[in-house]
Amino acid sequence: MDMMSRVQRALDQQLALAHSPSAPPRLIAALRHAVFPGGARIRPQLCLAVAQACGEDAPELTDAAAVAIELLHCASLVHDDMPCFDDADTRRGQPTVHKLHGEPLALLCGDGLIVMAFQALARAGAHHPQRLAGLIATVCTGTGAPDGIVAGQAWECEPRASLSRYQRAKTGALFVASTCAGAQAAGADPSAWRALGECLGEAYQVADDIRDVMLGSDELGKPAGQDAQHHRPSAAADLGLVGAVDYFRGLMQQAVDAIPDCPSRTAMRHLVWQESERLMPQSTCDRIHREYPQHRPAAVVAPRGALA
Amino acid sequence: MDMMSRVQRALDQQLALAHSPSAPPRLIAALRHAVFPGGARIRPQLCLAVAQACGEDAPELTDAAAVAIELLHCASLVHDDMPCFDDADTRRGQPTVHKLHGEPLALLCGDGLIVMAFQALARAGAHHPQRLAGLIATVCTGTGAPDGIVAGQAWECEPRASLSRYQRAKTGALFVASTCAGAQAAGADPSAWRALGECLGEAYQVADDIRDVMLGSDELGKPAGQDAQHHRPSAAADLGLVGAVDYFRGLMQQAVDAIPDCPSRTAMRHLVWQESERLMPQSTCDRIHREYPQHRPAAVVAPRGALA
Repeated sequence: MDMMSRVQRALDQQLALAHSPSAPPRLIAALRHAVFPGGARIRPQLCLAVAQACGEDAPELTDAAAVAIELLHCASLVHDDMPCFDDADTRRGQPTVHKLHGEPLALLCGDGLIVMAFQALARAGAHHPQRLAGLIATVCTGTGAPDGIVAGQAWECEPRASLSRYQRAKTGALFVASTCAGAQAAGADPSAWRALGECLGEAYQVADDIRDVMLGSDELGKPAGQDAQHHRPSAAADLGLVGAVDYFRGLMQQAVDAIPDCPSRTAMRHLVWQESERLMPQSTCDRIHREYPQHRPAAVVAPRGALA
Repeated sequence: MDMMSRVQRALDQQLALAHSPSAPPRLIAALRHAVFPGGARIRPQLCLAVAQACGEDAPELTDAAAVAIELLHCASLVHDDMPCFDDADTRRGQPTVHKLHGEPLALLCGDGLIVMAFQALARAGAHHPQRLAGLIATVCTGTGAPDGIVAGQAWECEPRASLSRYQRAKTGALFVASTCAGAQAAGADPSAWRALGECLGEAYQVADDIRDVMLGSDELGKPAGQDAQHHRPSAAADLGLVGAVDYFRGLMQQAVDAIPDCPSRTAMRHLVWQESERLMPQSTCDRIHREYPQHRPAAVVAPRGALA
């Protein structure tokens, strides 16, 4: 089974556990809408790939780690889309959860997905007790305070913040959790896989910043121009489009170089280049160089958060 | 050390772990405001009491279980108070988190507290791996879908719901998690402690319903009359005040009878009666019988959720 199918199947099985005659049907529908059909599932696939590279020996625990990370990602999207943050009407080409089910259920849906992530880990971890505490700690570090995605989002509410700290927490932290949890699910040392997660997380954020400037809402499947509208820091604003594209390519090279020695190192490198091409095709990079050579860094003046 | 001091110290130590130069200061302030000074801390104290009754042998794991349950309770209060639910300005006599820190930080604060609950369990559970998965599963069951507090709150968004199912999920589930997690933290079988949590959870909800009708906002430390205003089901509306008071006393008697055989059974019974007196003093029960003999059940017609 390819990795995408494996991720979808594991998510589907986890969601099914919330179905019960005793469950409020609209909450269950909101949970499903937040998770399916889903996006590229890059984080859980990364988790699976690292576990396989580490000689995966507990596939149900890998699945749980991948599921937990994707559910936490989906939870953050549901809450980020809400009116008090992005107030976005669409996500992945569909209405956002609060647009379809209302704000109260969107709020609860995010909470429910966070809890479900740990439910998945506990269920599979019961058979691998020696790996469970480390896995949960890794996932929590990527998600909560002081340095996880919740903290990253919270930097938008501060009067001043460091751009790199903001991006590391908002996007990087869950990529680091993805690679490290993949290793831990296979009983391997996570520290060797940290740098790969860091590089990919930053590259992903830079690609997102570029797309937010370049593409229209239809192509994005969500509102475009959000970074400028919400005065959020952005690599495209900071470095200009050409600078951001070059920075992105450099980060992907660093990601490739960060893959530790392992039997499937060549396959992992191929996967990273493939992901690079998916995120920001070479043809798009060339087009940006050709068509936007004058795109200059913009001064970001943020009323909600001045990020230095 | 008395149980309240032990709970406060454990919460304080857990919150301190989120402090870091890399953390967004306003998020940290919001997290603290959501947890301190706090209310009666009944759930974590119940967790400690059950662990002690089961011959507690891993106090740091008991502390983590108690902390996790209280943090999840605080998270649910922060999110319940937000404009899309109760839109409450005060809680425990203080401004609510969104009133003080704004909606975006209140949303993130609730998310951060949920993650922190599992962080606490993972940290202590690393030294007791055989107990960790069960503890997390218990805490998740009390919190998420299909039957935890998130589901309970979500019943308010349904066109129809069963009153008992709503109350069991919204309040009962975390009381059950408190007693069961206390037992599990001590390495004991949680099933014997389930009924105590169920009775106390329901009694707590009934007392809350009665107070919402009887007391003013100043005495409550939060807006009064919320159940009627939000067309929420309430034992006071369902049974009338006298009926609700009698039902409450009956539930507390059931709770006392549900305490399983254990060396500290007499002390536990005393504790439950003490809690009963704190929740709804005998003098108040007598006063209600004297002053509100005619208070009749009200027909609950709910535009948001018709609870049968």
